[in-house]
Amino acid sequence: MNRIFCIAVSVSLLATAMFGQANAVLSAREYRIANENRLAQQFIEFLSMPNVASDTPNIVRNADYLIDMMRKSELKPRLLTLTDKTVAPVVYGEWLTPGANQTIIFYAHYDGQPVDPKAWTVTPPFMPVIFDRPFEKGGKAVMMPGASEKIDPEWRLYARSASDDKAGVFAILTALEALKAKGIEPTVNIKFLFEGEEEVGSPHLGEILTKNKDLLKADAFIVCDGPVHQSGRKQVVFGVRGDTNVDLTVYGANRPLHSGHYGNWSPNPALLLAKLLGSMKDDHGNITIKLWNDDVEPLGSIEKQAIADAPQIDQQLKRELGLVYTEGSGKSLLDLINMPSLNINGMKSGDVGSLARNVIPTTANAVLDLRLVKGNDYIRQFQKLKTHIESQGFYVIDHEPSDAERLQHPLIAKLILLKGGYNAQRTRMDLPISLSVTVAVQRASNDPVVRMPTLGGSLPLSIISDALNVPTITVPIANYDNNQHAENENIRLQNLWDGIEIYASLMTMKTN
Amino acid sequence: MNRIFCIAVSVSLLATAMFGQANAVLSAREYRIANENRLAQQFIEFLSMPNVASDTPNIVRNADYLIDMMRKSELKPRLLTLTDKTVAPVVYGEWLTPGANQTIIFYAHYDGQPVDPKAWTVTPPFMPVIFDRPFEKGGKAVMMPGASEKIDPEWRLYARSASDDKAGVFAILTALEALKAKGIEPTVNIKFLFEGEEEVGSPHLGEILTKNKDLLKADAFIVCDGPVHQSGRKQVVFGVRGDTNVDLTVYGANRPLHSGHYGNWSPNPALLLAKLLGSMKDDHGNITIKLWNDDVEPLGSIEKQAIADAPQIDQQLKRELGLVYTEGSGKSLLDLINMPSLNINGMKSGDVGSLARNVIPTTANAVLDLRLVKGNDYIRQFQKLKTHIESQGFYVIDHEPSDAERLQHPLIAKLILLKGGYNAQRTRMDLPISLSVTVAVQRASNDPVVRMPTLGGSLPLSIISDALNVPTITVPIANYDNNQHAENENIRLQNLWDGIEIYASLMTMKTN
Repeated sequence: MNRIFCIAVSVSLLATAMFGQANAVLSAREYRIANENRLAQQFIEFLSMPNVASDTPNIVRNADYLIDMMRKSELKPRLLTLTDKTVAPVVYGEWLTPGANQTIIFYAHYDGQPVDPKAWTVTPPFMPVIFDRPFEKGGKAVMMPGASEKIDPEWRLYARSASDDKAGVFAILTALEALKAKGIEPTVNIKFLFEGEEEVGSPHLGEILTKNKDLLKADAFIVCDGPVHQSGRKQVVFGVRGDTNVDLTVYGANRPLHSGHYGNWSPNPALLLAKLLGSMKDDHGNITIKLWNDDVEPLGSIEKQAIADAPQIDQQLKRELGLVYTEGSGKSLLDLINMPSLNINGMKSGDVGSLARNVIPTTANAVLDLRLVKGNDYIRQFQKLKTHIESQGFYVIDHEPSDAERLQHPLIAKLILLKGGYNAQRTRMDLPISLSVTVAVQRASNDPVVRMPTLGGSLPLSIISDALNVPTITVPIANYDNNQHAENENIRLQNLWDGIEIYASLMTMKTN
Repeated sequence: MNRIFCIAVSVSLLATAMFGQANAVLSAREYRIANENRLAQQFIEFLSMPNVASDTPNIVRNADYLIDMMRKSELKPRLLTLTDKTVAPVVYGEWLTPGANQTIIFYAHYDGQPVDPKAWTVTPPFMPVIFDRPFEKGGKAVMMPGASEKIDPEWRLYARSASDDKAGVFAILTALEALKAKGIEPTVNIKFLFEGEEEVGSPHLGEILTKNKDLLKADAFIVCDGPVHQSGRKQVVFGVRGDTNVDLTVYGANRPLHSGHYGNWSPNPALLLAKLLGSMKDDHGNITIKLWNDDVEPLGSIEKQAIADAPQIDQQLKRELGLVYTEGSGKSLLDLINMPSLNINGMKSGDVGSLARNVIPTTANAVLDLRLVKGNDYIRQFQKLKTHIESQGFYVIDHEPSDAERLQHPLIAKLILLKGGYNAQRTRMDLPISLSVTVAVQRASNDPVVRMPTLGGSLPLSIISDALNVPTITVPIANYDNNQHAENENIRLQNLWDGIEIYASLMTMKTN
């Protein structure tokens, strides 16, 4: 789409936005303002339930809580699961609109990333607490106000999944609750789908969707996850990167050794790992692994234009994050997001701090995540990494080395492709449903909405589009500085309130 | 010393060994055999007391235990300490021999390295347990035999400080106990000195020694610490390497970031640390830091000859440790021990394993130890490292970076010289006391004793020789495969028994 055509479309979208269910946004706002103390309390209750995917008893508690909540709203909730008892259930519900000819699935996930309570300096991860502004900027804890007192929308609520992604679940359910309370009819049939294993790579989602293919017939699959644009502008995201994790271990001697008696003779695995990881990127942070980008599907002109239209936030972000240097030879964040990545999530050998000892550790371990763009395949990407490690002189295996292997190979690396990898997904920006969604989000915003070809983050959307053959579009609501996946995760309350309005607007979108 | 002269000296030493207190070794053996169940029980009791230097209440318990034990043996024990209450006391005692014209200080330390109980797979670090052979070779736990049952000298006793260095304390005290019981008079005045802060770099030892200079007047300072030679042969060590530890942290953004939204744009500190550590050694494990070896005092001909005379154990060790590759371009372990080293003790960024998350960590941290040889100075060595880090583009500071510093420097490293560094020390091998000690150790051994110019490990001997102006000589007793400083530390009982005989022989050495 060239710039003139793009403007023409924008004007026509804006005109459309004037008609139809234009009062849905305002009604949702009125409802939220009248009920915000109760809504905040409810959300805090939801966040108090631990929700790490591997913690099955608590995941089941979360699912039961949602079932209960949705039953009260007459959304006919039920659990979609498999016979395998370790599977976190998908919570399904629906609200059908008589006469509607389109069906939209609204998706969010109720599980969260693992937590290291020691690292949470604000509050333990499942004891939600409100701060008057970001903790990092000197914010102070505030008491939850009584029923008649006012909530400041700039307040931050701290807890695991405050943003990612219980905010999504809560905004979607509250949007419908507001519409119902205000007597506004949705324009589409609504299906709710809340997953409990997204943060471990959605290992069972494809199977569950395929098993319920008829139930989940729809015209679009809208995902509420991830942050709004760093400029604060709302955004519609048409794709997500794929993701896969890799566990890498290298070896020194078969037992820990005194660093004085054996150091600088017996190989130090921390040094071997450092050199190996260092070989994967050049001094400017560009990935040096052969063929890493060779199967990337180039962006089309519409996508390139949308990127050019997006606010440029690199300088602001660098200031805010305390950065002078960035990886990628100075390429912009948006350009880099549209390329496959390699990131070190964690790295460990021996001990640091008070446990540090004068030893040569026996192993050094790193966990990497590889983000994929359209055209990449996660198995292929893993193979490229493996070939690179071999090219650095390592004998690469998928198990602990045996005594015989140790005595045969100077350098040994154990490389494991962790479960839950998936590929990138991207929906065309010019489909009718893509335009309808853009208009609906624009209707809930005063500033021009940012249209993104892909989110930097990952969601298992390829699993969904493969299983249900449906276009997926992501409409995020969280503030970008939410400490997603890290300690001290939070949501800015205004983003949660805006989220309710955005989803009320989407549920009353004008379809063709 | 050329080879022929060396043989001449050896023969003359051997002849000397035939005379004098030759029955001290046999008497100590008889005493140990008659009492070994009680002795083993006592040693287990001693090892059951936690002894990490920072754990003041338990360190005091250990000191009190030694005072009590030495009082029973009439060794006039007392604590040497400073007014600073955090100082672990030095335990002093003495046994004066009427008519003796030489005084020997026998030193060992009763504190141990920090412990990570999770890593101890054999037993918790302060619950000593006996195995019938090394755990790593499939050994099984055995019950402590009753009073009349036999103890197998190949058994291993597992606990923190089983070797390093409560074995030293125990061997020294038991040697005198055996001599007294058998009515054998030492040939020298004996002073006992047991330190409680050796594993944190002896931060107060120099001051305590200086304060008690008159009390501690002596002709030699014999240190019982470290392992015997890897060949199993007993050894006399005339020097130790110096040691200092450094804490290194590099920085990414000022808050943790989602690896999808910001990865490969926001700098990853784990990658920065990997590249930085990788720059410190070449691909063959040779240190590449400029001027690292420039002030090394070359070995003399006597030292070179002693190294040449030592058994060559590199091939045996490599087989045993499961190694094909070694650092240092294939130089022998003994050659490398006589050079300054750089070792990564520990390295950490973000998390691995079940706590790994898709984030960009904010920092990456490593603890390094630098071993020093004669001629090096630990402050100078630290400066060389600092200059190297600067040459890699880092702004090097000694504090957490401020916001302003972050926005001024692309790469920032915090580099801290940890407390407790000290230089190397070496005593001439041809001093009369050096020859006397060598003869006494030879007397307690069937195989030729190995004479080492320096131990690979470190002891604060430079502090001692500076404070007391006395030659120091180290006579180790532990098995070399004792997992010193690591989890699953152990001692082979025969080494403990041999240690008693070696020290009984030293206490009855022929002096000139």
